Parts: sequence; structure tokens; C-alpha cells
Amino acid sequence: MKLPVGYRYASTYAGIRREKKDDLALILSETPASAAAMFTRNRVQAAPVLLAREHLRASRGVARAILVNAGNANCATRSGGRAALASCRAVARLLKTPVAEVLPASTGVIGVELDSKLIVDALPRLFDRLSESGFADAARAILTTDQVPKMAFGEVPLRTGVVHIAGMSKGSGMIHPRMATTLAFVMTDAAIAPRLLRPMLAAACERSYHRLSIDGDTSTNDTLILLANGASGIQPNAKERLVFQEVLSWVMEDLAEKIARDGEGARKLVTIHVLGARDDGAATEIARAIANSPLVKTAIAGSDPNWGRILSAAGNCGVEFDPGAVDIFMQHVRVCHRGVADGFSERELKQKLDARECLIRFVILGDGKGETRFWSCDLTENYVHINASYRT
Amino acid sequence: MKLPVGYRYASTYAGIRREKKDDLALILSETPASAAAMFTRNRVQAAPVLLAREHLRASRGVARAILVNAGNANCATRSGGRAALASCRAVARLLKTPVAEVLPASTGVIGVELDSKLIVDALPRLFDRLSESGFADAARAILTTDQVPKMAFGEVPLRTGVVHIAGMSKGSGMIHPRMATTLAFVMTDAAIAPRLLRPMLAAACERSYHRLSIDGDTSTNDTLILLANGASGIQPNAKERLVFQEVLSWVMEDLAEKIARDGEGARKLVTIHVLGARDDGAATEIARAIANSPLVKTAIAGSDPNWGRILSAAGNCGVEFDPGAVDIFMQHVRVCHRGVADGFSERELKQKLDARECLIRFVILGDGKGETRFWSCDLTENYVHINASYRT
Repeated sequence: MKLPVGYRYASTYAGIRREKKDDLALILSETPASAAAMFTRNRVQAAPVLLAREHLRASRGVARAILVNAGNANCATRSGGRAALASCRAVARLLKTPVAEVLPASTGVIGVELDSKLIVDALPRLFDRLSESGFADAARAILTTDQVPKMAFGEVPLRTGVVHIAGMSKGSGMIHPRMATTLAFVMTDAAIAPRLLRPMLAAACERSYHRLSIDGDTSTNDTLILLANGASGIQPNAKERLVFQEVLSWVMEDLAEKIARDGEGARKLVTIHVLGARDDGAATEIARAIANSPLVKTAIAGSDPNWGRILSAAGNCGVEFDPGAVDIFMQHVRVCHRGVADGFSERELKQKLDARECLIRFVILGDGKGETRFWSCDLTENYVHINASYRT
Repeated sequence: MKLPVGYRYASTYAGIRREKKDDLALILSETPASAAAMFTRNRVQAAPVLLAREHLRASRGVARAILVNAGNANCATRSGGRAALASCRAVARLLKTPVAEVLPASTGVIGVELDSKLIVDALPRLFDRLSESGFADAARAILTTDQVPKMAFGEVPLRTGVVHIAGMSKGSGMIHPRMATTLAFVMTDAAIAPRLLRPMLAAACERSYHRLSIDGDTSTNDTLILLANGASGIQPNAKERLVFQEVLSWVMEDLAEKIARDGEGARKLVTIHVLGARDDGAATEIARAIANSPLVKTAIAGSDPNWGRILSAAGNCGVEFDPGAVDIFMQHVRVCHRGVADGFSERELKQKLDARECLIRFVILGDGKGETRFWSCDLTENYVHINASYRT
């Protein structure tokens, strides 16, 4: 898949995390790009979140660079604001661009001071490495406990040519987006004004990152940035923007699914499809409750078709529905019909549930047209193991 | 501790659960007792919950017996209502009492038909065994994955004598009370009218079962019943009822703490103390968010003083507070002061966190007087193991 033109990427090891694995990435647009972003709604917000928001406001939605570090969240730290600003200033100096056009993002442990000198000293090295093909390396450098990098690509054929979209994201724990989640950076070479970009990002987020949960915890550092640098020379018109919007959503859904698949300790991707709710919002609430239930997630880890837990989890989400009008399918097998057990071979279904992908369909029989697709993963002993020893 | 007078208890194995361990219990008051109850707020409610509510309404808050089975939740079943009613009718016949004075409760797997014949056939045996000292056996029979029975006792010295309170409860997964939780039965020999009993139960529940979470899932079967049979001949006056209320709360707090200590797979009791919030409700919301965070719970399982996760979890609960005004203590060691890391010996604190009890204190510095104490437990690999293989 072709990358959007006019961007360069680089990563290096700056010494922020103990393990000697790249922990600093730079995403650069050759020219000032329109930028839109969504941030965590946690009351506790990391310094880079506060600064990125401020920069976007000051630049009126224009950005040249995104500077990302892994290994330290730069959250709940004494010198966090100063460290984030010093890092951005150093990038701005090298780019000869206003500091407000540099957006910072961090991920990693909370409450440990971030030494901005490590970042500033690594910048010349980072700039040396900048290349169009550095995309995958950058995608790797922003990871924490992820097993695999998450990348997704799309192209949008328009009347005067093709524009491209490329996104990267990290997982894989503390993921439960209300607003945005984790770190995600999506680049396109289409020409779209900031004021048009923002609602597009919000709508795509609604269909992707807002329908994803690993463990019900929303991070202090969630940052999702969309850049549109116009380097393709193609400016979609109003109708074409609808097509662009659709492809943008696909790219972000692809990233969200990849995050779920690589959830901390996860062996299985769980896709939850809710149909027949009052509206899409209600469907999403039901799906979220099922996705977050540790009892559902452990049952799936054990390939146990314990649909009672699915029904019970849905019953807790605050959405009104008639339990007697619910059908539940697991791997396309109807396990519950009108609220009670359906005849199915438990042994056969157990085998089907051993697959790496689990599909739960929750159908409310009636007139509702509300629908959602939601991504999650199973809860394994390994999740506990990873998180009990995260800092040791 | 002396039991309240005028009650008898029995348990037997009726064949409801596979494992040959008592699964049917009867709690009997010699005379009709005032009764108050709280039930799950899950949209999906088990047949015995619906029937117990109906019976309490019909009897205007009077009950003679509570019939409890473990091993089958009698929820999301075709014949659930009929099975619950048939069981209650059989008890009523033997007691020569109106059926509305028999309250049913069930716990166990969801979605499997309950054969009421098993219960009806076991009743003569159950009645034969009724005795005052059957309390502990009954407390054992209502358990599912619990390791130990939960019992708590209190006595209230009043002007004309002493009245007694005794409670039993089951844990240990799918516990996240909004309304009541799990099964709990509290008996007293004080004479208190039903209309006075109800607000007492609600207030005691607010301080106990509403401040307890194991895994964030609210069961379909939660039932909490308080009986007051007046067999002591002592009727507390308005002022004495305040004392009674206090002891009732203690007994129920004791049960709640015991449930947390024996949470599924738990190695550690976690007590969360929030101080300085706007009001008690806000304090409880913060505590609940900390209690429910899988990242906090796994960190505690690993004796990791990762206070950033505590701060982040609190930031997600929707309550407004200034992160810069937060102090966090773990095992009485201040780990976070005014929102940033405090100097502490990580090695020493790790050792302290190896204890069987973990105390988290979350203090918002300022003028707020809101306070709560909340019980939870750590999240271990064993929780996953138990729940991945619950039905196999």
C-alpha cells in the first residue's frame, strides 16, 4: 500500500525505557498540515496532552511534527510541563517552525520524571534518520507492552486522483476509550481545512476507537492526531469528503481491531455485534458492557459458551431492554433464544470457541434499528501476569 | 456469640450441583417475622428475585422462611417462575403458612433449567434437620466458588435487654453492588415493624454492600433479606433504633469485608479509604473506580506500588477533583504528594505490600468532608483460572 506523500518518519533509542528498544519517534510533514486531535477525558491528564491541546489552539489547527516517546507517560510529574515544552522547542528549532506546530505525545509509566535532555540529545540522530519509509519503525517505537505494531492503510480514489491515508497506533492495556484512546497518528496527503478535519476525526473515532475496550481503564495519555498536509495537491469536494470519511473510518476501524487482537495477554479477538437496540448509542452501551465484563472475557479465554454471563453483563449497562426478546449467537451458533437456552451442542461449540477469533452477536428482537460492532479480547492469566510485574 | 432467638436453620444436598456438597438451605422463623429486602438492579432478573419481590408485596413485609439453593441461578430459564413457585408452595404446605411468607433465593449458573422436584423431594429431610445450631451449615450450603463461609454477629444492649443480629452471605465473583449484592440473610430477634425495617436495611447496605466490588459485574440474583421476628420480646424505641441501626451496619460491613477477603482468586483484601471529596457519594465513586480497575488490582497482586494507576483510575470516575491536590498512601506510606511522586523506598514498600491486607488511602487536600471506606481484592491469575473453567 502506498503511503501518503509529503511525510517522513524516524525512530531511535533515547534511553527513556530500560529495555534497549526504540522509544522515540518523529512524524514530520514537509509542509504545515491541517491537524485535528482528540484527547483522553480522564481528569488526570499528562503534560503532553495539555501541551498538545494548547499548541493546536495556538496554531489554529496546523502542525508540522508529532514527537512521541514510549517508556514514560510524563504524567503526574513535577517537571512534566517543562520537559514536554523543552522537547517541542528543540524540534521547532531544528525545523525552524513555530513551537505550536510541534505536537507531543507520551506513553509509559505514570509518576516518573521524564528527563527531556534524553530527548533533546537524541533529536539530531532522529532527524538524520528521517525518511518516507521510516513509517514502520516509528510505529514500532511507540509501542509499550504490545506484541506487534499496528498499522493500517487506505486509499481514496477521487475525481482528480488518489489520496492516501496511513495510520499507526499503540495498544495494549489501559484501553477503554470514551473520547479517544491510547496513541494513534493518522496521516493523509489530501488537502482538507482544519475545521473540516475535526468533525471527520470525531465521526471516524465514534465508529472505531470508541468501540474498543481491553480492560476498562482509560489512560491519562490518550491522544489521537489526524494530519492532512495536502501534498497530493488534491482537495476533495463536499461529496468526495463523504468517501474520504468512509475510508478514514475503515483505516481507524482496522487499527482498533488490531489493538483488540493484541490486547495485553490476549489470545483471542472478540468482536461483539449488537443489533436491534433502540439506537446506535444504546447498542454501543450494551456492547461495551459485554466487552468489559471480566466474567465474559474469562469464559471466552476458557472457550466456555457461558452465554448467561453475556446476558447478565448486558443487563447491567443501564440500557432498558426486554431479556425475553434477546437472541445470543456465539460463532454463529444460537445459544440463547428469547432469553432462554437454545439447543446446541456444547462440545462442538467449545471447539469452535478455541479459534483465535470469537464473534458474539446479541440481537434484541423487535423494532429497534440500533446497531454496533465493538472490539475486545479475552482475559487470560497472562494479562494478570503482565500487569502484576509491569514495572519490575 | 449468641444467635438471635426464634430461628432455626437446616441444609442438605438436593442434587442441584454436581459436586456432592450441601446446596439447599432453609432459614425459618418460629413466628412470622418483619421482612425487608433489596434486590439486584440488573435488567435481567432471576425468577426467585421476581417471586421474592412479589411475595414481600403480597405479605406486606412478613415472612416465615427463606429457601435458598446454590448451583443453579434459576435465571434465563423457561420454567424458572414455575420452579420457584413450586418450591415455595411446598415449604408453605409443610409450615401451614401462606406461600407469600416464603422467600426464595438462588445462586449458581445462569441459563440452566432448575428441576424443582429435586428441591421438593429434599424438603422433608431439610425440615427434619432444622435446628438453632444449623446456622453455620446453612451459611456453608449457600456458597458457590467461595473458599470460606461468611458469617457475622452483633448484639445490641437496650434498656430492657439485649437483642441479637446474625448474618450470613455468599461471595465471591460477579460482585459489584449498586443495589444489593450476592445473597445475604440477616436475622434479628428485635421487634421492629416492616416499615421501619426497610430504611434501616437501605442505610446499612449503603455503608456495606454498596461499598464492595470484586469484579465489576452485578449478578442477576442479588438478594439481601433482613428478618426481625421479635422473639426477644424487645421493641427498640426511636432512640434505640439508632443504636440497632449502627450494629446492623457493623454486621453487614463485617460480611462485606469477608466477601472481599474471599473474592474469587484473591490473595489480598484491599481496603480503599477516600477522604476529602466533595461529599460521601463522590468519595464512593472515586473508591469504586479504584476498586474496579484491573490495572490497580493486578499491581496489588504483584506487590507493585504503582500509584499512577490509582490516580488514573480515580481520574476516570467522572468526579471532578484537582489531581494536583491528591495525596496517596499505600500501607501508610505516602507514595504521591500533591499529584506527584513522593520519596519512598520502593523495595521496603514492595515488602509491605506482600501482606494479606492492602490499605490504599486517597486524600484530596482541601475543604471537602466526603469520606468512604470501600472493600475490594487483588486480581490474580487464579481469578482467570476459576472463571475460565467455571462450568467444566
